[in-house]
Amino acid sequence: MSGNSFGTLFKITTWGESHGPATGVVIDGCPAGLKIHEKDIQKELDRRKPGQSQSTTARKEADKIEILSGIFENKATGTPISLIIRNTDTRSKDYEKLKNLYRPSHADFTYDEKYGFRDHRGGGRASARETTARVAAGAIAKKIIPFITFKTTLISPDFKTIEAARKEGDSIGGLIECVIQNIPAGLGSPVFEKLDARLAQAMLSIPGTKGFEIGSGFKGAEMKGSEHNDEILTKKGKVMTKTNHAGGVVGGISNGMDIIFRVAFKPTASIAKKQQTIDQKGSKKTIEIEGRHDPCIALRALPIVESMAALVLADEYLIQKTVK
Amino acid sequence: MSGNSFGTLFKITTWGESHGPATGVVIDGCPAGLKIHEKDIQKELDRRKPGQSQSTTARKEADKIEILSGIFENKATGTPISLIIRNTDTRSKDYEKLKNLYRPSHADFTYDEKYGFRDHRGGGRASARETTARVAAGAIAKKIIPFITFKTTLISPDFKTIEAARKEGDSIGGLIECVIQNIPAGLGSPVFEKLDARLAQAMLSIPGTKGFEIGSGFKGAEMKGSEHNDEILTKKGKVMTKTNHAGGVVGGISNGMDIIFRVAFKPTASIAKKQQTIDQKGSKKTIEIEGRHDPCIALRALPIVESMAALVLADEYLIQKTVK
Amino acid sequence: MSGNSFGTLFKITTWGESHGPATGVVIDGCPAGLKIHEKDIQKELDRRKPGQSQSTTARKEADKIEILSGIFENKATGTPISLIIRNTDTRSKDYEKLKNLYRPSHADFTYDEKYGFRDHRGGGRASARETTARVAAGAIAKKIIPFITFKTTLISPDFKTIEAARKEGDSIGGLIECVIQNIPAGLGSPVFEKLDARLAQAMLSIPGTKGFEIGSGFKGAEMKGSEHNDEILTKKGKVMTKTNHAGGVVGGISNGMDIIFRVAFKPTASIAKKQQTIDQKGSKKTIEIEGRHDPCIALRALPIVESMAALVLADEYLIQKTVK
Amino acid sequence: MSGNSFGTLFKITTWGESHGPATGVVIDGCPAGLKIHEKDIQKELDRRKPGQSQSTTARKEADKIEILSGIFENKATGTPISLIIRNTDTRSKDYEKLKNLYRPSHADFTYDEKYGFRDHRGGGRASARETTARVAAGAIAKKIIPFITFKTTLISPDFKTIEAARKEGDSIGGLIECVIQNIPAGLGSPVFEKLDARLAQAMLSIPGTKGFEIGSGFKGAEMKGSEHNDEILTKKGKVMTKTNHAGGVVGGISNGMDIIFRVAFKPTASIAKKQQTIDQKGSKKTIEIEGRHDPCIALRALPIVESMAALVLADEYLIQKTVK
Repeated sequence: MSGNSFGTLFKITTWGESHGPATGVVIDGCPAGLKIHEKDIQKELDRRKPGQSQSTTARKEADKIEILSGIFENKATGTPISLIIRNTDTRSKDYEKLKNLYRPSHADFTYDEKYGFRDHRGGGRASARETTARVAAGAIAKKIIPFITFKTTLISPDFKTIEAARKEGDSIGGLIECVIQNIPAGLGSPVFEKLDARLAQAMLSIPGTKGFEIGSGFKGAEMKGSEHNDEILTKKGKVMTKTNHAGGVVGGISNGMDIIFRVAFKPTASIAKKQQTIDQKGSKKTIEIEGRHDPCIALRALPIVESMAALVLADEYLIQKTVK
Repeated sequence: MSGNSFGTLFKITTWGESHGPATGVVIDGCPAGLKIHEKDIQKELDRRKPGQSQSTTARKEADKIEILSGIFENKATGTPISLIIRNTDTRSKDYEKLKNLYRPSHADFTYDEKYGFRDHRGGGRASARETTARVAAGAIAKKIIPFITFKTTLISPDFKTIEAARKEGDSIGGLIECVIQNIPAGLGSPVFEKLDARLAQAMLSIPGTKGFEIGSGFKGAEMKGSEHNDEILTKKGKVMTKTNHAGGVVGGISNGMDIIFRVAFKPTASIAKKQQTIDQKGSKKTIEIEGRHDPCIALRALPIVESMAALVLADEYLIQKTVK
Repeated sequence: MSGNSFGTLFKITTWGESHGPATGVVIDGCPAGLKIHEKDIQKELDRRKPGQSQSTTARKEADKIEILSGIFENKATGTPISLIIRNTDTRSKDYEKLKNLYRPSHADFTYDEKYGFRDHRGGGRASARETTARVAAGAIAKKIIPFITFKTTLISPDFKTIEAARKEGDSIGGLIECVIQNIPAGLGSPVFEKLDARLAQAMLSIPGTKGFEIGSGFKGAEMKGSEHNDEILTKKGKVMTKTNHAGGVVGGISNGMDIIFRVAFKPTASIAKKQQTIDQKGSKKTIEIEGRHDPCIALRALPIVESMAALVLADEYLIQKTVK
Repeated sequence: MSGNSFGTLFKITTWGESHGPATGVVIDGCPAGLKIHEKDIQKELDRRKPGQSQSTTARKEADKIEILSGIFENKATGTPISLIIRNTDTRSKDYEKLKNLYRPSHADFTYDEKYGFRDHRGGGRASARETTARVAAGAIAKKIIPFITFKTTLISPDFKTIEAARKEGDSIGGLIECVIQNIPAGLGSPVFEKLDARLAQAMLSIPGTKGFEIGSGFKGAEMKGSEHNDEILTKKGKVMTKTNHAGGVVGGISNGMDIIFRVAFKPTASIAKKQQTIDQKGSKKTIEIEGRHDPCIALRALPIVESMAALVLADEYLIQKTVK
């Protein structure tokens, strides 16, 4: 109810704050017998790890996965898989002077309003640290649907542009495209759990996202039906469409074509430049955020986007087994 | 699990096919004592009713609401509210000749793949008839949060453009903007049930939608942090932001500013023009869809967008009562 | 959240009050293609129908099932099945004089406390009318698991005893035993959704129940391990146990032996004899309940017990498809 | 879906096997600001700890609680609380020779049937180790409802009897009674989530339970309505009943009287005496279980019964805030 779980049959619950001892995830509903090696999970975690290039945050985290339950002799037992990732490089003192300030475009004020107080060390649950747990779970989700492939790319900005923002003590937004291939037709549900609706929720749940579109997306809003409709045909016995304005989902259900969607990320809220804001009492303050931050969050979000898509698809793949 | 329910504390389950005897909704979790008059629901249903202008489908439906349970002497009893809307103008024969054909950009093929067969009379659950139940439920959701106001407008296309499409036997997409005012700060949750993530799911669950963006949206992907960050200030004792690139939601939680989002609708899939497709056996066919269809589904989607937003907000409003 | 839904993959939501226009159920998750005839449902409803013998309530209800969605040409479409049963013989005036009184051992007082007011005509949701919807849903659940058989019997009291209670204007409790045969091993889950835990919830959710026991039950609390342990053996290649103190469930999971459980029902709360109570203001009152009531609710509960068991088993049967 | 979660608003998900590195629980929905000290949780864990008397298992576990998230400066932040308890005294070798054998009345066979294989070291999720997580969560649940008191007692057997069983290498069942006082009227829901139905599920989810009864329980099945009905009266302005055959719950909702229920526990399945069984291939085997086991599981189950009851009541207490 508090929004820390995702999925129905393949269900994950994440926990952990930016500056607490660890983050983690409990996965309930992983099919028994699925082969899972620690290194499969570690590999995905390494993809999102900070400190890989100049353009990412300087926070150094080992992001070492520990498996605490649910896997025996490298096979899922069918019982909950508990995964944990220790926080090792938490510099909580960096945040001490921000304690009573509301950082612009951060969740400080909204958390205070919602909960009455907050853990002021880093972003708490709003921190990108929380996404480690998603990526770990996504690594397992991918193993349920090994025949499906993901191509996730940063459409914009280019690295030069990112570097320019970094040097200015500024940040920049980004656009990610995800192409998912070899999807069986029939995944997803009508009405509220449409496959595209679930992907939209999944993507907008990633910190810093502002938009989601599938197939023709916002351009589709300007098209005519005679242009937009995807002619249906068969090719080598497989039902396909000539164009793919649908983006692989019709009526909320996959049609076997590539699923293509794009996600808009806003620029990182933490910038080195001075900003105007208020403190908890409402007094005007000037704020200067030091810490260590990514100039472009989209750059590190690629494996997160992919993990969330994998979580949705693995779940729908299991659901489909019960439908007919 | 099959995707026909929405919400957690204010939970709705919809049912009904385009050409069945009725559509309906069961609402579980409506607070006891809430005053509900049949006419409050009827008024919202009348807003989405077809046949109000030349630019909407010619199907004539009374869309008369019947209350079967959960309301006694115009007050919610706290038990499930069952609402039903009879289908009266179903011309199933129009669909007889389409029985074995896959209409382009319709869910005929995907339903067959998912379920092994389908009710071929109209769109079944994929039909816009299903949204009557959402609007009826949305009318009740609004009464839980009467202080919140919704301004939902069709940004594009304009009526001339729609009429031009209709005359050509074609259809056209559309863009809707929804501005929600007087929202208390603190609604929504971190992580998977972020307020914007729930709105994204809600909007993408509406038939014909291809994209969702909040605040700066896709433009935010090109902005710098120093432009995009919303300076926090107080005005008459209320915490506000100077700009509203966030669109009223920060870290998944409302900040008290207007919530502003946009939804992209594709053009109506049913067009009078001849189209190429295949039948269930995979043979090439030419299809000509007669029936009665809206040239621009976005035009009639305004109350549906608003209802879905109201469902999310009423639910979060009840959830917030348990948080601190 | 408000307790009107049951099940996970085969999920039902019931609605309707004793003296409203109808009761009904929405079933979400019925596998597509399942053959369902109206008469299959009607047959089960007829089993619970009142007025079949002197020993049941005199209320005359046709209990005619109407299918409003989800079934096309006698096959489940995979979309929600909406079933409705009209109330035809509601004599609300019988209840007018009880309006402000709290009937002993009825839910009048507790509903007032929970909801702040109540529909005083009959028992509202607490009425046995609500169970029509369960039986209708149970009829469909049974078709998912046609190989499983149910033997449900009234262990006590005997008919003479019931008749004696009726003649005295009194009522009597009852004990039901349910034996379920041909269950595949492997249904149910560890921990909170143990098969026996779900059956316990299912049974205690039936109006008037006070206890549940499985296998050795309360006698098992006095036994020694050496007596109680069920020796495991094979018979014609099938793993079985010599005794069945487990009652067919070990560690929350079916072991393939018969599931045997018993449910205790209290005597009907509505009796003709004069009783002491209070009114809504707290003043002492003498109450004399007229109306039409069963002297032994257990007598009519047989198909309800069976339906609830079928709902649990059909759900677990679908869940098991996703486990390994 | 896999049955490792319990609760709706105060929701727990437990994980961990008997012989894995740890057990744990994630609690989602704990109200923000609730004061929680580590020692409050530790105190409850110490109550269920083995090795406190001769009559409990010789396994020595520190059962030291670690808080990994969701609590900051001894206050719940409103985000998930992750608790972990390390397994320190796992003697997996004890189980090596039982690897291919099905222990009578243990879940070895049923887990194999459900999952296709199992972690053979100890009982996995079926082990009583899993209940550490419930007790830890229960400690927090109790703090949400500090005004409610629990009196949980072992009705039978007495200690002599237990000792006698132990000396014989045998075990014995037990009966627990729980009396819950100072409950506000109005907790619980009609229909499927009746308070007594939830308690029944909660109790039958505890390893080794065979029955549940509330108030008059199975005796109520033999009573007449005129004896069983609880006369309603007021005492010092409070609505009460003269008798309490209901056991504090009417129509699924608390009436403010004491909640009284009893739970039957079977004898411990692990006994030192030789037993007949089969191995995984179906061959007859004689089994002798060494290990370290409680002669009477009911003896250590007192805090578990209480924790499960607290989990149900804390959840219903939060739910009630949203009802009227």
